[in-house]
Amino acid sequence: MSLPSLRLKANADRRLRAGHLWIYSNEVDVVATPLTGFAPGDQAILEAAGGKPLGIVGLSPNNLICARLLSRDLKYPLDKSLLVHRLNVALSLRERLFDTPCYRLVYGDADLLPGLVVDRFFDILVVQIASATMERHKDSVLEALLQVCKPSGVLWKNDASARDAEGLPSYVEPAYGDIPDWAPLEENGVKFAAPILQGQKTGWFYDHRMNRARLAPYVKGKRVLDLFSYIGGWGVQAAAFGASEVMCVDASGFALDGAERNATLNGVAEKLICVEGDVFEAIKELKLVDERFDVVIADPPAFIKRKKDLKNGEAAYRRLNEQAMRLLNKDGILVSASCSMHLPEDDLQNILLGSARHLDRNIQLLERGAQGPDHPVHPAIAETRYIKSLICRLLPS
Amino acid sequence: MSLPSLRLKANADRRLRAGHLWIYSNEVDVVATPLTGFAPGDQAILEAAGGKPLGIVGLSPNNLICARLLSRDLKYPLDKSLLVHRLNVALSLRERLFDTPCYRLVYGDADLLPGLVVDRFFDILVVQIASATMERHKDSVLEALLQVCKPSGVLWKNDASARDAEGLPSYVEPAYGDIPDWAPLEENGVKFAAPILQGQKTGWFYDHRMNRARLAPYVKGKRVLDLFSYIGGWGVQAAAFGASEVMCVDASGFALDGAERNATLNGVAEKLICVEGDVFEAIKELKLVDERFDVVIADPPAFIKRKKDLKNGEAAYRRLNEQAMRLLNKDGILVSASCSMHLPEDDLQNILLGSARHLDRNIQLLERGAQGPDHPVHPAIAETRYIKSLICRLLPS
Repeated sequence: MSLPSLRLKANADRRLRAGHLWIYSNEVDVVATPLTGFAPGDQAILEAAGGKPLGIVGLSPNNLICARLLSRDLKYPLDKSLLVHRLNVALSLRERLFDTPCYRLVYGDADLLPGLVVDRFFDILVVQIASATMERHKDSVLEALLQVCKPSGVLWKNDASARDAEGLPSYVEPAYGDIPDWAPLEENGVKFAAPILQGQKTGWFYDHRMNRARLAPYVKGKRVLDLFSYIGGWGVQAAAFGASEVMCVDASGFALDGAERNATLNGVAEKLICVEGDVFEAIKELKLVDERFDVVIADPPAFIKRKKDLKNGEAAYRRLNEQAMRLLNKDGILVSASCSMHLPEDDLQNILLGSARHLDRNIQLLERGAQGPDHPVHPAIAETRYIKSLICRLLPS
Repeated sequence: MSLPSLRLKANADRRLRAGHLWIYSNEVDVVATPLTGFAPGDQAILEAAGGKPLGIVGLSPNNLICARLLSRDLKYPLDKSLLVHRLNVALSLRERLFDTPCYRLVYGDADLLPGLVVDRFFDILVVQIASATMERHKDSVLEALLQVCKPSGVLWKNDASARDAEGLPSYVEPAYGDIPDWAPLEENGVKFAAPILQGQKTGWFYDHRMNRARLAPYVKGKRVLDLFSYIGGWGVQAAAFGASEVMCVDASGFALDGAERNATLNGVAEKLICVEGDVFEAIKELKLVDERFDVVIADPPAFIKRKKDLKNGEAAYRRLNEQAMRLLNKDGILVSASCSMHLPEDDLQNILLGSARHLDRNIQLLERGAQGPDHPVHPAIAETRYIKSLICRLLPS
């Protein structure tokens, strides 16, 4: 191996020894090993201040997170061979967990593949690269995916904003084979098609799989409202699980067309009502005409994208959940979800408690759900944990 | 209504307005309303410092928690009528959630019945009373249970240590009908019998129902070790879900006889191996003879019973989980549970991370489970949330 060294300052190795994978630029001994000596995507041997090697990192020298640990074993730099190994380890977990090949196959740091996300839709793979190192190894990533998964199509969905900080361009382009506009998938026994080219992120949010599965006992024979429905991930499953009626609200007509398409796939189109428009406006109008629901699902896009949005974002969650509660029948169920990594679960719980008290209701917190096991959490990296789903029961005080 | 008043000090109403139900003795304006003027189990109208009524409380005047809110509506003191109402509200949730009448029917504060716990085993009810107020209303509790549930038997299992602080005696005695030594129940489609007279707590731990259900994908065809197995809640379900072999370890021969009995009920007795003895000793011996398992379940009794046990308790969790990890095959699954209310989930996660790093393993946190929805959390009362179950995957570093 002839990799250059990246030297840490004194004690900067502690977090890494405790399990973390990231190196911040202010932790590097730039006198010994200037970051300017590296190009984005270079690999190096990470050394503690005393010179002891800690593993191999991939560099993003212009980023605040200037390097990520790729391997603690100096024998294994990032190459096709390591990618194949790590993909096989990731795949074996998903095959153990799921009968149907529809899941997040790779979840970045937690699968020891920092900067790489792969969602699998049967034999279509949608890939998101978010680091200069993975971008540099694009060809090997593709080769490894072809070898391990034998897909019929692979799509680069490289348009996430995280790429900006890495100085990477934004693009969506086929990497291999035939890419349909809509990729079929199954979740909790319910059929869907996801708009992998034009949709949000990879086209589907597998992260809420287990939380959606938990809808079943709550929605049977009930009237359900799905706020920020996107293409019906929650709403169509509620209908398939036996809800009597489901209203999907979303600002995007494209998304609602997808929800109708997905309802049709499962023979529940007649149960679905789609309302296009701003969700907060729609709630107001529903309240005006005195509509009520037995179950309201509120799974908004991240209101807190950056730490500095915390205060405004919390206010938005409070407003949304309190308005959602107002639309509930007596003994109603609120499913309150958040994908904001910066919103701790306890904060969301407190928001729900506060809203319930404000409306003079009693609240029981029945279930707290997290992202499914195909989105493993790296316990040393708080950022890998982001999904919350609280199922609450609202009762008269 | 001719209830006496219990007056709070200035600002002591805030926590209650925010949803909490408990009053601490130092929050009472004992000059205006001396606690010595009340007998255990008395009811009173709780007033803010300014005299505004807040609701009806039941008193335990000699306890640190000297009163608990029974109702925010002054029209409804605790009597048979309120008990019937609250039981019906509790029952309707459980009937919505479960096809089989085996569940925690009443979970104290979170069901607005402070001091009352009821576990249901088909038509047998096991009742735990933990407050002077509920003890005073024992007859009404029984009448209400008979009216709402029409059970064939009701057992007072009033031997919990929490009764000491309330000055209540410890006893186990039939309240109604025929009480079998072992009560049948079903959980996740698996049959059990629970020793309701001689077992721990009510004889069964319904709180881990959903976490045990999650064993299914991990144990199929695998070799499983169930530490602190009690009567096989985890182990027998693992066997029923398709594990190839399950070893149950417990210090109690009585519990292990129960595990065998329960395995037989499900036709999986030949998969079960029972080892009687101290769990830490058993782990050492298994290690000595180089035994390995694909899945290890570690669900010990609460190592942290009081806040002052925190440090020693954490050390015990660390020791247990690290030893459990050593018994895992490559790519093994550890199910690490805790019922210690004083151990935050994040602390358990950090213990697992630290143990994995200490053994130079990579750890993925796949699932974080909580108590099931028949143990609702009262979001204002941290003490109502206690169950943790973390499913982790351990990989070579």
